[in-house]
Amino acid sequence: MSRYFIEIAYDGTNYHGWQIQKNANSVQAEINKAISTLLQSEIMITGAGRTDAGVHAKQMFAHFDFSGKIPQNFLFKLNCFLANDIVCKSIIKVNDDLHARFDATSRTYEYWIIQQKDPFLKNKAFFFHYHLDINEMNKAAKTLFNFEDFTSFSKSKTDTKTNNCKILVAQWQQIGNELIFTITANRFLRNMVRAIVGTLLDVGQGKLTTEEFKKIIASKDRSEAGKSVPAHGLYLSKVVYSKVKF
Amino acid sequence: MSRYFIEIAYDGTNYHGWQIQKNANSVQAEINKAISTLLQSEIMITGAGRTDAGVHAKQMFAHFDFSGKIPQNFLFKLNCFLANDIVCKSIIKVNDDLHARFDATSRTYEYWIIQQKDPFLKNKAFFFHYHLDINEMNKAAKTLFNFEDFTSFSKSKTDTKTNNCKILVAQWQQIGNELIFTITANRFLRNMVRAIVGTLLDVGQGKLTTEEFKKIIASKDRSEAGKSVPAHGLYLSKVVYSKVKF
Repeated sequence: MSRYFIEIAYDGTNYHGWQIQKNANSVQAEINKAISTLLQSEIMITGAGRTDAGVHAKQMFAHFDFSGKIPQNFLFKLNCFLANDIVCKSIIKVNDDLHARFDATSRTYEYWIIQQKDPFLKNKAFFFHYHLDINEMNKAAKTLFNFEDFTSFSKSKTDTKTNNCKILVAQWQQIGNELIFTITANRFLRNMVRAIVGTLLDVGQGKLTTEEFKKIIASKDRSEAGKSVPAHGLYLSKVVYSKVKF
Repeated sequence: MSRYFIEIAYDGTNYHGWQIQKNANSVQAEINKAISTLLQSEIMITGAGRTDAGVHAKQMFAHFDFSGKIPQNFLFKLNCFLANDIVCKSIIKVNDDLHARFDATSRTYEYWIIQQKDPFLKNKAFFFHYHLDINEMNKAAKTLFNFEDFTSFSKSKTDTKTNNCKILVAQWQQIGNELIFTITANRFLRNMVRAIVGTLLDVGQGKLTTEEFKKIIASKDRSEAGKSVPAHGLYLSKVVYSKVKF
């Protein structure tokens, strides 16, 4: 039995998220089906994490085990089996114990905002036309580094043991017409990025000061934070493993 | 009565083309409906041209006549009425006799090809994985300047009086991951760009030489040319009026 990592990207618009589930299509189920057909063996992939319905991934990793021979032109054939909104970019043989989820040491998300309507970014960026002060949003974003417990930005009902995360990057950038928030952490709580972005938009509009933003985090109370922004602006953009470089 | 020009962009994926028609949705009908609601008057817009089902527009102009007062924040309000795949970018009062279609002196189209699958360009670029020789395609494209009659690249049944066009630009460029064909002419025949691109792809694959490409144009016979490429890679990207600068 050998373990393989695959690197994936997808447009999440037409899926009920990454994770396989009954009565709804998912990215994971689509890839399981395509790889199983191609390898003529029942394959179950394990992803680096889960993305919610409508969330996209520029880079996601998943692993699977297989005892046979990977056919020539595996990637080309697999991409023919997959719909045109999912692509498998690479396949790498790894050590048998490398785990796509548990061995990921950091994950990066991007949140895309457009302030002018753009038909070509429908379902790919959040259209938000109110004036935003990016400097203030970046000032508040920097304070995220001072905290570890992000209960204020988590779904109230989760099965995680702790709500602690180590934030490594948190920055807003204007890139062309897009205003992009990039955030890197060792782990993320469910809904965390969308809740942080929603609260930072309150800062950008002058509804909250940086001090108030910090108080919200310190309160460890989800009801204090701003509204979550919609899923369709969110991208999982990078997953890093310390044990291996892809 | 005053005449107004509007500048429009749209993702054509969900429309049966620009032109209003029975029993099918169209970009023109959507805009008529939105403007009529906003101005509380039955408005019929006239476009610079027609785009087929699935074809996009980065820039399209249309005109309409209205005797009332254009309300404040017209663009913002109109864009709220329009779906998120159509945007109206500007409105300009023009001379009463300026016609969006007849006074357009040149139109530019782009055709987008991706050679590697990209989930974020689903419905926005044609995925074509065979090797292409861009130099050969550009060499053949340059010969388009030597011809005026493009019957070989037109739909067999059309009501146009002549099949003559003056080609001003015809060029392939690799821009990032996209291979983009840009073509400018005073006018285009129905299906012309897609038939030219399909035939140039035969050149790029070595199936046709530049000499053979020229013979196809000279033959004035549509059956000689290559297959039309799919609509979803095509963008109307620029419309120019000599009488007025937008």
